[in-house]
Amino acid sequence: MTEIDGQAGGHRAPKKGLVIVNTGNGKGKTTAALGIVLRAWGRGMRVCVIQFLKNEHARYGEIRAAEKLGIEWLSTGDGWTWTSKDPAATRSRALAAWATAQAKIAGGNYNIVVLDEFTYLLHYGWLDTAEVLAWLAEHKPAMLHVIITGRYAPPALIEFADLVTEMHEVKHPFSQQGIRAQAGIEF
Amino acid sequence: MTEIDGQAGGHRAPKKGLVIVNTGNGKGKTTAALGIVLRAWGRGMRVCVIQFLKNEHARYGEIRAAEKLGIEWLSTGDGWTWTSKDPAATRSRALAAWATAQAKIAGGNYNIVVLDEFTYLLHYGWLDTAEVLAWLAEHKPAMLHVIITGRYAPPALIEFADLVTEMHEVKHPFSQQGIRAQAGIEF
Repeated sequence: MTEIDGQAGGHRAPKKGLVIVNTGNGKGKTTAALGIVLRAWGRGMRVCVIQFLKNEHARYGEIRAAEKLGIEWLSTGDGWTWTSKDPAATRSRALAAWATAQAKIAGGNYNIVVLDEFTYLLHYGWLDTAEVLAWLAEHKPAMLHVIITGRYAPPALIEFADLVTEMHEVKHPFSQQGIRAQAGIEF
Repeated sequence: MTEIDGQAGGHRAPKKGLVIVNTGNGKGKTTAALGIVLRAWGRGMRVCVIQFLKNEHARYGEIRAAEKLGIEWLSTGDGWTWTSKDPAATRSRALAAWATAQAKIAGGNYNIVVLDEFTYLLHYGWLDTAEVLAWLAEHKPAMLHVIITGRYAPPALIEFADLVTEMHEVKHPFSQQGIRAQAGIEF
C-alpha cells in the first residue's frame, strides 16, 4: 500500500501529479471530484472533465455550472446507459471515450483531468485494466492530476493510484425512506 | 435507520430538504459538499457555506472560487484552530459561529446551507448535540438542505440525518508516501 505501482524504489519526489480514485457504494464520488474542480478553478488551474456514463438525470446542474465557468466538460457517454441493449456499440463508445481521454491526458494542456464513472469500463471489461494502467504510467504528464470515479474500482487500479477514498453509504433517503432525488443535490 | 429522528410516523413527503452528513477519516467530505455547491450554483440555487474550522492552508482555492461565483462563504473559524491554547475562547467562537449558522438556516433565504467541519463542535462538546438537533428539528425550513461535514459525527446526528456517507481512507499519499499536499487538490 505504500508504493504506487510496484515500480518505484525508495525515493519519491515531494510533489507530483496524483492519480486519485473515489470509489465505493456511497454518495460523493463525483461530487468530491467536482469540489476539487471548483477549488482548482478558484486557483485558475486548467481542468477537463470527461463523463463516461450518461446519468439518468443527465447531470444538468454540474454541466450548467461547467458551461458558466468555462470548464471543459465532455459528455462522452451521451446515449450510452446501463440499459444498453447493444454490447458491441457500448464497447465501441467506451473505446472512443477512452481515446478522447488519452488525448486530453497526454496533450499536456491541463492541470487536472477528471474521468467520471470510468471504473465501470474496467469493471465490465470494456477496457483492459492492465493496458490502461500501463498507458497512464507511460503517458500521464508528471504533474497532471487524474481523478477517476465510480464503483467497483479494480484492485490493480487501487494499487496504481496515489490517493484512494471509499465512499460508504451509511444512510440513504432514496433507498431507505422513499425520498425522491432532488435537483441541485443529486443532479 | 429508516426513520430520520424517531418522531416521524409512517408517511413521508416525497420531496423535502435533506440533512446530509459527510463523515469518516477519508478525503472528500468537504469537497463532496463543494461539488453539491457547484451543482446547485449551476441551477441558480442560493447557497451559503459556513466554515467552522480554520484549515492550515486556509482553503484558498474554494474561497477564491466562492468569491468569483458570488456564493456566500463565512469563515467563522478564522483564528480558531486545533492548536488553540485557550479553550474558553474556542468555545466562545464555536457558539458565535453556531449562532451565525442558526440565523442563516432559520432566515429562509437559502436552498442549501453547508456547515463545514461542524461535527467537531459536537464531538468535543462545545455544543450539545441534542440541543442542536432539537433546534434543527424546529427551525430548519422544510425545503432547506443542510450539509454537515467533519469526522466523528455523533451517533445522534447520524440518526437524525437523512443521508449519511462515510468517506473511508483506503490509500493516502501524504500519510503513506510522503507526498506534499498540493494546491488545487488539497486546498
